[in-house]
Amino acid sequence: MLKALRPESVKKCSKEELNVLCDELRRVIYETVMQCGGHLASNLGAVESTVALFYAFDFPRDKIIFDVGHQCYAYKLLSGRLDRFSTLRSAGGISGFPKRKESEYDCYDTGHAGTSVSAAIGLAKAQELTGKSGAVIAYIGDGSFNNGLVYEALCSLKILNVKILIVLNDNDMSISPTVGGMHDMLAQIKQNGRAENVKLLENFGLKYIGVKNGNDLEEMLEAVDEAKTLLNTQSVLLHIATKKGKGYEFSEEHPTNTHGVPPVGSPKDKEYSEVLGETLCSLAKNDGKITVVSAAMKEALGLAEFFANYPERAFDVGICEENASVLCAAMSAGGLKPYYAIYSTFLQRAFDEIIHDVCAQDLPVTFCIDRAGISGADGETHQGVFDLSYLSLIPNLTVAVPKDTEELKKMLEFSATYPHPLAIRYPRAGKVLFEGSDKPMKLGEWEYLHRVDGKKHARVTLIASGERCLILAMKVLKNLEKQGKSFDVVNARFVKPLDVELLRGLDGEHVITVEDNVFLGGFGAMLDGEAVRLKKTWTIKNFAYRDEFIPQGGVCALQKEYGVDCEQIEAYILGILQ
Amino acid sequence: MLKALRPESVKKCSKEELNVLCDELRRVIYETVMQCGGHLASNLGAVESTVALFYAFDFPRDKIIFDVGHQCYAYKLLSGRLDRFSTLRSAGGISGFPKRKESEYDCYDTGHAGTSVSAAIGLAKAQELTGKSGAVIAYIGDGSFNNGLVYEALCSLKILNVKILIVLNDNDMSISPTVGGMHDMLAQIKQNGRAENVKLLENFGLKYIGVKNGNDLEEMLEAVDEAKTLLNTQSVLLHIATKKGKGYEFSEEHPTNTHGVPPVGSPKDKEYSEVLGETLCSLAKNDGKITVVSAAMKEALGLAEFFANYPERAFDVGICEENASVLCAAMSAGGLKPYYAIYSTFLQRAFDEIIHDVCAQDLPVTFCIDRAGISGADGETHQGVFDLSYLSLIPNLTVAVPKDTEELKKMLEFSATYPHPLAIRYPRAGKVLFEGSDKPMKLGEWEYLHRVDGKKHARVTLIASGERCLILAMKVLKNLEKQGKSFDVVNARFVKPLDVELLRGLDGEHVITVEDNVFLGGFGAMLDGEAVRLKKTWTIKNFAYRDEFIPQGGVCALQKEYGVDCEQIEAYILGILQ
Repeated sequence: MLKALRPESVKKCSKEELNVLCDELRRVIYETVMQCGGHLASNLGAVESTVALFYAFDFPRDKIIFDVGHQCYAYKLLSGRLDRFSTLRSAGGISGFPKRKESEYDCYDTGHAGTSVSAAIGLAKAQELTGKSGAVIAYIGDGSFNNGLVYEALCSLKILNVKILIVLNDNDMSISPTVGGMHDMLAQIKQNGRAENVKLLENFGLKYIGVKNGNDLEEMLEAVDEAKTLLNTQSVLLHIATKKGKGYEFSEEHPTNTHGVPPVGSPKDKEYSEVLGETLCSLAKNDGKITVVSAAMKEALGLAEFFANYPERAFDVGICEENASVLCAAMSAGGLKPYYAIYSTFLQRAFDEIIHDVCAQDLPVTFCIDRAGISGADGETHQGVFDLSYLSLIPNLTVAVPKDTEELKKMLEFSATYPHPLAIRYPRAGKVLFEGSDKPMKLGEWEYLHRVDGKKHARVTLIASGERCLILAMKVLKNLEKQGKSFDVVNARFVKPLDVELLRGLDGEHVITVEDNVFLGGFGAMLDGEAVRLKKTWTIKNFAYRDEFIPQGGVCALQKEYGVDCEQIEAYILGILQ
Repeated sequence: MLKALRPESVKKCSKEELNVLCDELRRVIYETVMQCGGHLASNLGAVESTVALFYAFDFPRDKIIFDVGHQCYAYKLLSGRLDRFSTLRSAGGISGFPKRKESEYDCYDTGHAGTSVSAAIGLAKAQELTGKSGAVIAYIGDGSFNNGLVYEALCSLKILNVKILIVLNDNDMSISPTVGGMHDMLAQIKQNGRAENVKLLENFGLKYIGVKNGNDLEEMLEAVDEAKTLLNTQSVLLHIATKKGKGYEFSEEHPTNTHGVPPVGSPKDKEYSEVLGETLCSLAKNDGKITVVSAAMKEALGLAEFFANYPERAFDVGICEENASVLCAAMSAGGLKPYYAIYSTFLQRAFDEIIHDVCAQDLPVTFCIDRAGISGADGETHQGVFDLSYLSLIPNLTVAVPKDTEELKKMLEFSATYPHPLAIRYPRAGKVLFEGSDKPMKLGEWEYLHRVDGKKHARVTLIASGERCLILAMKVLKNLEKQGKSFDVVNARFVKPLDVELLRGLDGEHVITVEDNVFLGGFGAMLDGEAVRLKKTWTIKNFAYRDEFIPQGGVCALQKEYGVDCEQIEAYILGILQ
């Protein structure tokens, strides 16, 4: 029946039909995610509550903001996007997150955790001041509810003096199980509805409604109806207990593994995350001061083994990127050697703490930054293409980019005795690509991966940062060598500091930079500035992403489309060497 | 008696002596702040509690982290810094904030709000893992207690499983009065100790102790003693009600005006903040969609009048920089025209929200960024020298820098119909410095402030961004013209986008950039990159701050010391024109 259903007809369904609808939604979600990859468990758990909200409210006049947005598939299917749903997460297709450009039913884009309550308050205020009616709903998981931004929003609910509905979808899970003080409180409320805890929420101006089984459609319909009525006079917190992965047995049992799912048949490399985990375990064996901090992502970051082997030195603080950063700074100030592993895009949340707590105090915290560069199918909100820029501008911070998984290992060994802040950034998939060298890592030292025979300096030197870009470089080199042409290739394994000695001695005519980052403030831009300082008269060409948000798509296709491209590099060099 | 007192002797004082000590501390603080400027009201309010903590605990073996750090003067005086205290906030002198480099009694540097609880947890964990004993205390005001980072830290207290003491110094004030849900709860606890609220704190693993008058030494001594005993078995929240400005009548009555105090006899200019307030009021008169959001700084930002005139469209959300940013994004998505006024250094906290909420959705939020560039006496944690870099790297964001207060007004008028995200950054003090032009502001268009007579292009073009740098430029020009030499001066009032048309047509030999920002990722660096793209063969020289944290001192002296210097610019140009 989903196929024939128009959005406005959901309200006219009988309860039996709504139950059928839930089953159909669940099947479409499951089948699509198996094809396209995506968030499985979170979307399966949100089906009944989404149907109940769609039944009771009047979207898009009423508005809903999905926190993080990784549980909006049922909502997308109900709001007229079934036809295109098989394009999920592919270039030009349906996004895995809410997108205003995609549908009038999506009123606010999300991707990072904790923004939904602030956004609901802001939208409700806008409705009021522009004279529009309509309810505003924030749909948020218990994992996000730990995030500081949500607390700031709750504190401001009375100040802005608006009425919103917060649906707290509580499945005891972030990507990893939810942890910490707020979660304990929610657990107590769920168990026995302790009045004093409910009272707390009322301090923030929220009326509490609890739903014991948020995957029971009947219960959900009743509760949403009650919430809708209450919303006429005050803000409401509708706390629903759900099962992550609901309806798909393997996912119910393995919610962490099925939080995000790759398409069936994806290749399995040894990833950077695995090397991170192994190396930190091995370093920790000989150094009791090593600690590891994660913000709800320990499995995806390769740290499960470390957490199992060194539980007293491993801390998952939930989706609290800022707190994780300050904890590391303070641990370091207290004599420990902390490693903070995190995705590139989420580290943006801790930008001020990296400056104010870690770097201003020059504390030897090591940031292990995964999913750097274009990350692909998750789109704009998840691309890790800003980190070289926002990290390099910070004094005292060294920024390193391994050329392959073997070099990540070496960098981590280097970090063990490095007495200053250090950031190491790398993409997800990785391999041992280049022949190893026995030389230990030296701060700021680059290496030649290829030199033109018999020349002190080639006319053209290509300097690339990170595995993806060096792969492009070596591919271009191979193609050109077939035509009897050649150039030097340098691995810029430190983006900050630049290898000024190497650059000073570089007397070729042409320098080319390649990076997996936006141009502005990035590696190429830093090299341009250094060339000015060194009074170099090279002709420089920078390959980097142009100044736009990069949407979802395949990594290679996006690299090409946004400015980092084998063919263009080859054409450029041919233009010189012809 | 303060003069003869060694830190370790405080414990041996009688209660009478401690009372005398409080009076003396208060007098030294008052007199020093009148001389040097600094935080007055917050430090006066913290005297008794600091003395009580110093009496009961054993610093520096025990450790205390002052949140924000603007209430640590009594602690500094007790810990052996009386002799040097008259150098407060001057170059090379005593810092107005805790500084590890200054004394072993300062265990963790602060400056921004909300870091103390995370830091205390991290330090306590470090004590445990490195086998050291000693209590760890976070001393935090109720204004900071609204901050999301504090909530994240509270959520993680049980996860890290350490015992800390949190002293919550509750004076009902941030810089402005404290507001919001958490404050209401604290107010209720203070009034009648409602059990259900206290219970909440216990969910986080905190035992609650309340002190009705935290400026009563006797009460404080008893409570600290109780807290110290409890701390053996669990974490404690010691909630003390104090009076901001205590003991100085004018300050008690005007805590906002005396939060930060300039030295007596400081000159009073018409500041950028005043122009901001006036212009927004005047724009709001004709545009009902204009809203203003502030994070606990409305007076310092010049917005008091706006808040008085348009209370329904003005929102102070407390020290919640991230929430303020998302609120603006959502208001904008809902059809309003929000202005977010904030200090440069504090906006760092909202870096991810600027990217993820405002710019990725291309929403027309206007950031009015005060205290940009070197801010002077507050030191490392307060310099606004990173904003050109961390803002320019973000797609969809325009970055403007007015040359004087008159141009700020024009930029705000420009913003009223500008349909994309916009950041306008300016320092504190400002004037109308340059002759006005009637031309309306055009996106990305620079202007010549001086052209060498009769030349299409001078040999030397100096391009400067912002009032301070243009003042330097015009001063150098005046000096050189006395010697019969001259150069072109350009006002780069947009740092992003650069005026590419002007640059493309620029055919002189030498280009010089000057900015009030670090070099990396800043204006000069962007121009260097653009020169590469445009294949320009200019000889470029960039004047900007070098890659270091800039300590406290006078603005001009620091500009010079860190790389932006009249004499050097003059010498450089003379070197060319000789």
